[in-house]
This record gives sequence, C-alpha cells and structure tokens, in this order.
Amino acid sequence: MSDRRFDADCTELARRMLDDVRGLSRDGPGVTRPSYSDIETGTLAYLAQQAAAAGLETAYDLAGNLWMTVAGGDPALPRVIAGSHADSVPQGGNFDGLAGIVAALLCGIRMRREGVVPKRAFTALALRGEESAWFGKPYLGSAALLGRLTEQDLALKHRDTGHPLNFYMREVGADPGRLVRGKPLIDPASVAAFLELHIEQGPILEDSGLAVGIVTGIRGNVRHLRVRCVGTTGHSGAVPKSLRQDAVFAVADFLSQVESAWAQWLQRGHDLVVTTGVIQTNAATHAPSVIAGEVTFSLEARSESQSTLTEFRDAVVARSRAIGEARGVRFEFDAPVFSSPAMLDARIVDLLAAICAREHLGHMRILSGAGHDAALFANAGIPAAMIFVRNQHGSHNPEEDMRIDDLMAGATVLYEAIFAVP
Amino acid sequence: MSDRRFDADCTELARRMLDDVRGLSRDGPGVTRPSYSDIETGTLAYLAQQAAAAGLETAYDLAGNLWMTVAGGDPALPRVIAGSHADSVPQGGNFDGLAGIVAALLCGIRMRREGVVPKRAFTALALRGEESAWFGKPYLGSAALLGRLTEQDLALKHRDTGHPLNFYMREVGADPGRLVRGKPLIDPASVAAFLELHIEQGPILEDSGLAVGIVTGIRGNVRHLRVRCVGTTGHSGAVPKSLRQDAVFAVADFLSQVESAWAQWLQRGHDLVVTTGVIQTNAATHAPSVIAGEVTFSLEARSESQSTLTEFRDAVVARSRAIGEARGVRFEFDAPVFSSPAMLDARIVDLLAAICAREHLGHMRILSGAGHDAALFANAGIPAAMIFVRNQHGSHNPEEDMRIDDLMAGATVLYEAIFAVP
Repeated sequence: MSDRRFDADCTELARRMLDDVRGLSRDGPGVTRPSYSDIETGTLAYLAQQAAAAGLETAYDLAGNLWMTVAGGDPALPRVIAGSHADSVPQGGNFDGLAGIVAALLCGIRMRREGVVPKRAFTALALRGEESAWFGKPYLGSAALLGRLTEQDLALKHRDTGHPLNFYMREVGADPGRLVRGKPLIDPASVAAFLELHIEQGPILEDSGLAVGIVTGIRGNVRHLRVRCVGTTGHSGAVPKSLRQDAVFAVADFLSQVESAWAQWLQRGHDLVVTTGVIQTNAATHAPSVIAGEVTFSLEARSESQSTLTEFRDAVVARSRAIGEARGVRFEFDAPVFSSPAMLDARIVDLLAAICAREHLGHMRILSGAGHDAALFANAGIPAAMIFVRNQHGSHNPEEDMRIDDLMAGATVLYEAIFAVP
Repeated sequence: MSDRRFDADCTELARRMLDDVRGLSRDGPGVTRPSYSDIETGTLAYLAQQAAAAGLETAYDLAGNLWMTVAGGDPALPRVIAGSHADSVPQGGNFDGLAGIVAALLCGIRMRREGVVPKRAFTALALRGEESAWFGKPYLGSAALLGRLTEQDLALKHRDTGHPLNFYMREVGADPGRLVRGKPLIDPASVAAFLELHIEQGPILEDSGLAVGIVTGIRGNVRHLRVRCVGTTGHSGAVPKSLRQDAVFAVADFLSQVESAWAQWLQRGHDLVVTTGVIQTNAATHAPSVIAGEVTFSLEARSESQSTLTEFRDAVVARSRAIGEARGVRFEFDAPVFSSPAMLDARIVDLLAAICAREHLGHMRILSGAGHDAALFANAGIPAAMIFVRNQHGSHNPEEDMRIDDLMAGATVLYEAIFAVP
C-alpha cells in the first residue's frame, strides 16, 4: 500500500478506541449496547470526547445521533458523511457498527492532525438504534434522521422492559415528537454522499482471502416479529394423538415446510435467506407434562428482490392456513415489517474500486446480505456506498472478530474516497 | 343410588372446601399450588384444620405429607389409606389432586359424624409434590414417604428460582436427610390398601356419559426435561443456507420426525403418547435477526409398556444423531427419567366394580394415561387402586371442571371400599 495509509499512531488509536468502547459495554464474552440506552449514550459520549480532543466539532441531532465534523473549505458545497451505528445485538460482537464509526472518526482526526482542510465539510456520524433486536425494527436512528419514523414506531416496545421507543428516546434527550412529521432533519441535497464502512457479516471475504469488499447492493427483508400458533392445552398422558391440538408439533411441521419451500425457491434461482431466530412456548404455563396450547416465533426472509420477499411471505402464510386446518390449530401473524432492498451509487462504487486498484489493495464487489443504515440514505436519494472489511466468525455473536490491519486498509479507502466524492 | 350416599351437608362441605382452597391458590383464571411451597403448606394447614375440627387426628410425616386419621377398632390390623396430592401445575385447575384429598377427608369426617368406628384405622393422606412441573420430577411426596427419593432428587432445581428441592423441603419443615436413606417412612406391610380418587384427565368418561371409572393400570413415562440442540449463531442476512447450522430448523426437523415415528408406532399397535411441552431459544441472546445457535426442549413419552418407552426413546435419540450429522448441529440429551408403569390390585379393582354395581352406578374399567401417586404405592408392594371421576376440559389447565355430584358418587364408592378392603 502507498504512503496514503494511516500511520502507526492512528492504528494504535483505532485499537484503543475499540477496546475502550468494549470496556464500556462488556457482557460476558461479548458486548451489549442496547438501542437508545444509557450504554449507547455512554459510547457516543466517549466518541464525542475523542473527537473534541482532536479538534472536531461535535453536536447531537434531534434523533440523538452524534455528528463529529471537520468544516470544509467551501461551505456552499454539500458535505460528505461517513459513519455507522453504535448499538449492538444482545451479547453481540464489538465491531458490528462500531468499526465504521471509528474508521470515520479516524479520517476526521487525521485531517486535523495533518492540517488538511477538505473542500467539502466532512462529518463522522455515530447513529443510534440500528439493531432490530431491541424494539423489533431496525435503522431507528437513521430513519429518524431521514424523516421516516412513524407514530407506530414510537410505540414499539422494548424486548425486555416493554416500555415504548418513545420513552427511551426522551430518556437520551431526543425529541420524538419532531421525528414523526415525515420531514428529514437535514436536507438530502446538502449531503453529497453517505459512506459506510462495516465488517462483512458473512464468511465470503475471509474465504476469498481479501481484506476489503465494495458493496453493490443491500438485501431487503420482511419480518414477522411474532407469529402465534394457538392450540389446546391438555394433560400429556391422557389425550390420545387423534384428539390433540398440539401447538409445538404444528409449528415444527410449519417450520419444516418453510425450510423445504426455501430450498425450492433457491433452486428456482431466487436470492433468499430465511430465519426463525426466536421460538418459545408460554413460559408462564408450559411444562413437560402439558400439551402446549401456544407457541410464538419470529419469521424473517431477506432478498435483493422485493417481489421475492412478498411472494415468499404469501406462500408460507398460505401453508400455515392449511396446517392449521388439518391440525385444529390457528396461526396468527402480526403485521409484516418490510425493509426495502437498496442499490448503492454506481459512480461511488466505481470510485471505491478505483481507489483499491490504485492502492494495490485486493478487493471484490459483493452483495450485502444484511441490511444497513446506508440503505436508508440510498432510498432517501442520497448517493450511498459501503466498504466491507473482512471479519472472522460472522457477526451478532461474541466470537465476531476483525484484524486491525484490515480495518486500517478499509479506512484508507474511506479516507481517499471522502476527498474524491464527485 | 342407595342411602349409602353422602348427605347434602357433606356435599356442601365438599363444595366449600374446594372453594376455600381455590381461594388460597388462585392465579388468574386457574390455580397455582407449587410443590413444596408456602401455598401447598397453607393448603395442608387448611385441610388439617377441617380434619381436626371434625375430630380426626392430624400429623405430618418427615416428608411433609399430612396424615388425617380415624383410629380403627383393631389396632393390630394394617390401615387403609386414601388420598392424593395437594399441589398443582402452574395455572392449573383446582381439582387435579385436591378432589381426591377432599373425598378421602369427607370419608373420615363422615365416620366421625355418624359415630362409625372402622375395623382398620383409616387415614386421609394429603401428599406433596406430585407435579413434575416444579422440580422436573413427579411423585416427590410419595417417593419420599416410600423411601424412593435419592440425593440427586434433592438437588433438582426449582423451575423459577433455581433453588434445589433440598432447600424447599427444609423450608416446609421436612427432613430431607432422613428421606434419602432408601428406607420407607412407614412399613409397607402396615398398609392394607392405598385408594386414590382422582379426576380423569382425558375425555373418555365424559364421552361415555359415565360419572366414575375404575382404573386398571397406570401408564409409565420417560422424560428428557432438557434436550439441547447446539448449532452456530450468525447474522440472519449474511450466511447462505448451505453454510448454516441453524438450531431452530434442526429441531423442527427432529420434532416432525418424532411425530411421524409416533404415528408409525401407533399403527404397529403400541400404547404411546408423545409430548414436547416446552421449547425455547436462548432468551439472553435470541433475536429475529440472529440465526439460533441453541434451542432447548422437553421430550416425554408415556406407555403402559416399559419396553415401548425404552425402545421409542432409543429410536428418537438415534434419529437426532442422524439429523445432527446432516446439519452440523449437536443434540445433547440430559439423563432420561423413567416412571414405571403400574398394575393396580386386581382384587380391589373387582371390589370397586362390585360396589358400583351394587349402588347401580354406571362405570367402566379404564387405563390411566397420566401417572399417579398410586403407582408408587403399587410398585412398593402396597395393594393400590384408583377411582376416576368424570371431568370436563381435561386437566393441567384453568378450564378443568368437575360436577360436584360426580365427586360425591366417587366418594361413595371410596367410602364403601374403605370398609370392604380385604
């Protein structure tokens, strides 16, 4: 790599910031940074302190996101934003989200250290509330920023406490009333590009021996947070098979059919992944000797194609009806939540690839299976792009890992791109 | 029915005692009387008060069970015991267990009221800890009484608090150290018969239009309280189907195969019911967007045949191995807990049937699908028998129901049998 790379001091700073935030949010072997929580706020406060110490301007928007800015040479030009999210899933890894904020902040700090004034203003943005694990819906911080939050979203309940998002937003000083007027907090035309560095959450870069990927598009998804199968409880010894309305066996049958359908759709050439991450009998009443009268579970499908999402969902709902009829049970689906697939900006994708080539940095173009805040910027009409950094053992788990040199390689591409955005 | 029936005062007393205990243990629409809990203790204290007020002697054994006794005319003769259990499943019905204690106590109260001195001493016995829902193992009170409790049993953990049975036994004044010496608290030869009246927990008597059933045998069971399927967590969007080790789809596949095997075994003529009453992903880490790395579930089979239980269990464990191999997951079974099937005493079964015939009481012979304390007495060499009383809506749920006239019909058969035990 050329001398455009970050120096050893910056690498050490990156390592320290990552370690410090890990220390603020450690939870067993992993980290837990809940969306719109005190821990998320503490993470932002720490990052703001680092930014201010290096001479960046810091400010919070009305959604509680942290803006760390280096003023541009020409104030009339739209700014470049780079960043990602500060929250994590429960007992997740330290790098999902945080790596992208640290990389962006390092770019700002480097400008200050080297006395470089970019033509366009540059903001390192630390977003809140990207993980759906906490309120059942992802991208809350970026949605709020871009005027896409709704009254219904404010009523979403926290997975542990049952308190609504509304409550938690106020707790961290955000202004929820302002966020649901359908108007972005910023003028999209004032942003030249949104650039998000993120660890790859699958094994593809690692398998390919490449440090960096240039993302071409982001899968959308459809989610049912809570599907309920209602049968009839009964004594496990005293009701013969023919008279049972057993919710557990009904759900096992349904999920086996969902998995078979998934395999068929893949064979037909659809892009599709399907997950039931949560399943549980009713903890207040279940027992090994009681026939289950209720099972609840989540159901999620992801695809780069909106029509695949819609049609697959319809197909499995139809199967649930047939199973319910045959077994004397009832499947109740909550309202589906859709996140749209997103195309990233082709010019910036090409620019990022050109930077990699110039820096002799092995890379590949890659589709993002996971959703990202960048999708919301793209769908709001802001040119957006993403840099993936190689990562070991996947994400959303404590074993998630990332080599610091790979992060610095990605940060170099990001730094070069900030100045080259058209 | 003849004038041997209980009078209106006794019927009213039965109704009142059932209602009073319901009041002590109400929990939403049902009742909750945990094994070896304060609520169970309060129930026993209430019953002891009723017994003492009617002139019965009351005492607690070292397992905490309540003995309510009418002395016999000939103290040298082995006694007759009738009774059942005072505990319930979480949010269960009021009659499962309690009906049998109330019927037995009414028999003793009637002897006192009518000045009848039975030849053999008679004890109405209120047992503790029959429901496996609380500590994962059933018949704790009768097992302790009959010298069948083990050190391992004392370490069984409470489903909600995680404290061991040991702790709860001491809390209610029992002497756990004495209970695990392998010696019964009573000499089995000092008991002429154990008679248990219990609501039927299935729909057979109701369907047949009969108030009373004479039980001929009791199904045994094998239980795995906790089967664990271990896969690999991962981001739900970023891992393709071929690379997943998804514990939810693996368990869905396994349970579907268990259900198919069950249907096949029924076709081959086995007596068998199979239940998974509990299933759950790991609540600390699960989320709709995380591929599940762990699912735990219970697995229970019941049969009148011990060999059916053993062979079916072995067959499904073998299937789990094949599924684990194919999917890259691992199934871990905890130690199986077996409860032996039990044959009831043929002479007393015939005696009960003869009493029903003499009283012109429609009845049928019936197999008990559920396990009962009576099975432990039978397997300890004590002649045992059971009277089933018709019941609506099954048991182990708040909708469980029983007509008071049906209870009194069963109590009449019990009363007659106490005097007729050979």
